[in-house]
Amino acid sequence: MPKFYIPPERLKEGKLVIIGKTHHHLSRVLRIKPGDDVGVMDGAGRVGKASVTEISRDRTMIEVEGISVVEGKRPRLHLYQAIPKGKKMDRVVQSAVEMDVSSITPFHSGRSVMPGKGEGARLERWRRIAVEASRVAGRAYLPEVGSPLRWEEILDNLKSLDLTLMADEAGGYRPTEALEGRLPGDLGMVVGPEGGFTRDERFELRDMGATAITLGDLILRTETAALALTAAVKCHFGSL
Amino acid sequence: MPKFYIPPERLKEGKLVIIGKTHHHLSRVLRIKPGDDVGVMDGAGRVGKASVTEISRDRTMIEVEGISVVEGKRPRLHLYQAIPKGKKMDRVVQSAVEMDVSSITPFHSGRSVMPGKGEGARLERWRRIAVEASRVAGRAYLPEVGSPLRWEEILDNLKSLDLTLMADEAGGYRPTEALEGRLPGDLGMVVGPEGGFTRDERFELRDMGATAITLGDLILRTETAALALTAAVKCHFGSL
Repeated sequence: MPKFYIPPERLKEGKLVIIGKTHHHLSRVLRIKPGDDVGVMDGAGRVGKASVTEISRDRTMIEVEGISVVEGKRPRLHLYQAIPKGKKMDRVVQSAVEMDVSSITPFHSGRSVMPGKGEGARLERWRRIAVEASRVAGRAYLPEVGSPLRWEEILDNLKSLDLTLMADEAGGYRPTEALEGRLPGDLGMVVGPEGGFTRDERFELRDMGATAITLGDLILRTETAALALTAAVKCHFGSL
Repeated sequence: MPKFYIPPERLKEGKLVIIGKTHHHLSRVLRIKPGDDVGVMDGAGRVGKASVTEISRDRTMIEVEGISVVEGKRPRLHLYQAIPKGKKMDRVVQSAVEMDVSSITPFHSGRSVMPGKGEGARLERWRRIAVEASRVAGRAYLPEVGSPLRWEEILDNLKSLDLTLMADEAGGYRPTEALEGRLPGDLGMVVGPEGGFTRDERFELRDMGATAITLGDLILRTETAALALTAAVKCHFGSL
């Protein structure tokens, strides 16, 4: 069943008019027809079923039948990803969204790519990828993609979380060991850049209370590490 | 520490001459110098430490010091992946290798891409990607990338395994529930194509004994599903 987002202020039971891109996608790309069922979501936890009543050149009419509220999962997962080279961050965003993380915060560290011009455009792209991946995955809650942070900012940012895990190639606890007996509301997962964290960065992270995590004997690329850590955490909490 | 493969028949303690591509990679790309430590592996479980003694234009000389045997992990994981569109299979191979799967078998199903010319070249590429990803990850055992199988062949192939899980968007057990109390020597993980398995395929898989697995509430792309399922299995068996 095709699903799409409707702004929270517009999503209500009864007749709704869909125009613009979503209309185009439904009518031209997915070729839906009157009578077909579709799913609607507001990205803030409300989801509904609807049936298509009419399709014209410039609009799709739907009838929303039942709206329910999907409870947000705990812990909320917050991925902090050192920005990797090229388009790898696109893939990190896409797969992290599918793995239901609540927020993705790109950051700069000693060995990650440097901030540069074009960063604004890249952030816009990551946000578009996140919305589209959310739609396809059928997420009730849209994830947040934060502006890239500098190193000092990320340390500060992590303080607001209940627990932070950092993927550390120098070793540490297994994810499930580090999480044993804990149910954080907000759980941070920090993944370093391609060259790894510097010694100082590793020390600063541990110093602010991050728990060093190992992801096994092999060396993972940064984008695989992000997904493996997220999967291990979800596995521990029973949502994978 | 840079690591590279040496054929099993050549890997022994003492002096070794490295020529060709590996020499080029060590001397030109990694710019190693006499006195540097490197890791050597034969891809069949033997790993050793070595130090570089001499580098000339056309060869690198190393002294292999200690060779040890890394025990193979159980269960051995076998990923069966319906061939997705474009270059996605490249990424599946790369990340599955990092997640230490023992074999990757691409296959065709009703909704996957059709077999076509160029398949031989693609298989070669997947194998090259697997070797390179293994080297970077530091795998003691090289994975096998099998020739693409037709649907009837895969059903037959799965019979030789001790247990098979299939990612099923129609739902099923959580991976850890399906694995509870079991320690298969060879564990198959079957991931369908972008459009999912057909009803008949799903039925045939269950019929030959595959256990249907859910990977959560959201809809995962096929390449994310492969990695999430592998991670969940590793998590269950304590290697992630």
